[in-house]
Amino acid sequence: MLFRQLFDAESSTYTYLLADLATREAVLIDPVLEQVERDVRLVQELGLKLQVVLETHVHADHITAAGLLRERTGARVFASARGAPCVDRQLSQGDVVRVGGIEVRVLETPGHTDDSLSFLCDGRLFSGDALLVRGTGRTDFQNGDPGQLYDSITRELFSLPDATEVYPAHDYAGFTMTSVGEEKRHNPRLAGKSREDFVAFMKARQIPPPRKLDVAVPANRACGLSEPSSPHPA
Amino acid sequence: MLFRQLFDAESSTYTYLLADLATREAVLIDPVLEQVERDVRLVQELGLKLQVVLETHVHADHITAAGLLRERTGARVFASARGAPCVDRQLSQGDVVRVGGIEVRVLETPGHTDDSLSFLCDGRLFSGDALLVRGTGRTDFQNGDPGQLYDSITRELFSLPDATEVYPAHDYAGFTMTSVGEEKRHNPRLAGKSREDFVAFMKARQIPPPRKLDVAVPANRACGLSEPSSPHPA
Repeated sequence: MLFRQLFDAESSTYTYLLADLATREAVLIDPVLEQVERDVRLVQELGLKLQVVLETHVHADHITAAGLLRERTGARVFASARGAPCVDRQLSQGDVVRVGGIEVRVLETPGHTDDSLSFLCDGRLFSGDALLVRGTGRTDFQNGDPGQLYDSITRELFSLPDATEVYPAHDYAGFTMTSVGEEKRHNPRLAGKSREDFVAFMKARQIPPPRKLDVAVPANRACGLSEPSSPHPA
Repeated sequence: MLFRQLFDAESSTYTYLLADLATREAVLIDPVLEQVERDVRLVQELGLKLQVVLETHVHADHITAAGLLRERTGARVFASARGAPCVDRQLSQGDVVRVGGIEVRVLETPGHTDDSLSFLCDGRLFSGDALLVRGTGRTDFQNGDPGQLYDSITRELFSLPDATEVYPAHDYAGFTMTSVGEEKRHNPRLAGKSREDFVAFMKARQIPPPRKLDVAVPANRACGLSEPSSPHPA
């Protein structure tokens, strides 16, 4: 399997490219609108065919490239049943997305937003904005809920093997990945902290809303296109 | 083997952490002064002992953390015999650096600077500022030489297997890695280009010098410390 991590410096967003090297079929997770030329070109140079775009959630800090990639490549867009209405397939807990020989298992991990999913593929966890390196997503908009996020991380993600590699949707300190075991031991919001500790910490935080919140959320509910495009039949 | 890629957003520098998971001995390649707290903490949290800092070259765009890491952890600093006088061991073509079970092979790849090395370890090439993703290092200071850089890349690095993963010292477009085969085919400065083409392209470029050139080069010749520290006996 081919695996590539890509970064958008403006929003500190990680995009992930997975591909079956036998069939050349590919999946992009959380592509960013401003990087669409880079990503389309990379897919083309690697001789891949983009089949599926996966969204971990309706993002508030950047606009997705999902809709534009669907128009340009014919890829289908998959995300949570609780998220954007523009998608081609609504995903729920336990679903498996198959692209060539790649199998991506869907985990519902709400709390950052109510539509947040994580994706597990070949020992790698794509944790969206639920679990970050030594941090977590925020919980103060889009139906975020700190208690729910604590449960998603500690019951769902921390039940995975310690060696599971964790690839977040963002990082702001130059980390590119972590592991489940490492976050259990060293995440300052979670290690040795009770649900009550976590909820109190998250509720006490005073941080400004994402700069693009009012633009990004409605745009992302239309898969990043100002004119909503029609989903393809699944 | 443990492998981690770390990023310094201000200078767009990648730092690499390699470790033998049995002996817990670790190597850092191209650490950045401003990230020393992050990196020391990560090494500690992962239960590692930093043994060696490798420098691909005397950097002009950021100050190395090598000297400070030597002071704080007892690690030794290795770099080219043509580079900084502050190092504990001078490396040349074909040398092998052994740390626990990790073997790093040294390749001399001058052209960006005259002291530029690349490091090969377990199918991964750390290409410094010689070969970048779809680009190359510049050649207009520190005894840079475009003809020499073309030879280093095409004769030395492109003789490695196509599947060799390439991890550069910098990226400015959000790529985290590439492969030898991919750069042979898709690097716009190299694919289908003669030595003369490359030299003409590099000589015609008009780009401002690195902002930190006058500070970083002398600082890095002292391993990033304003007061040069003594090398440990090798």
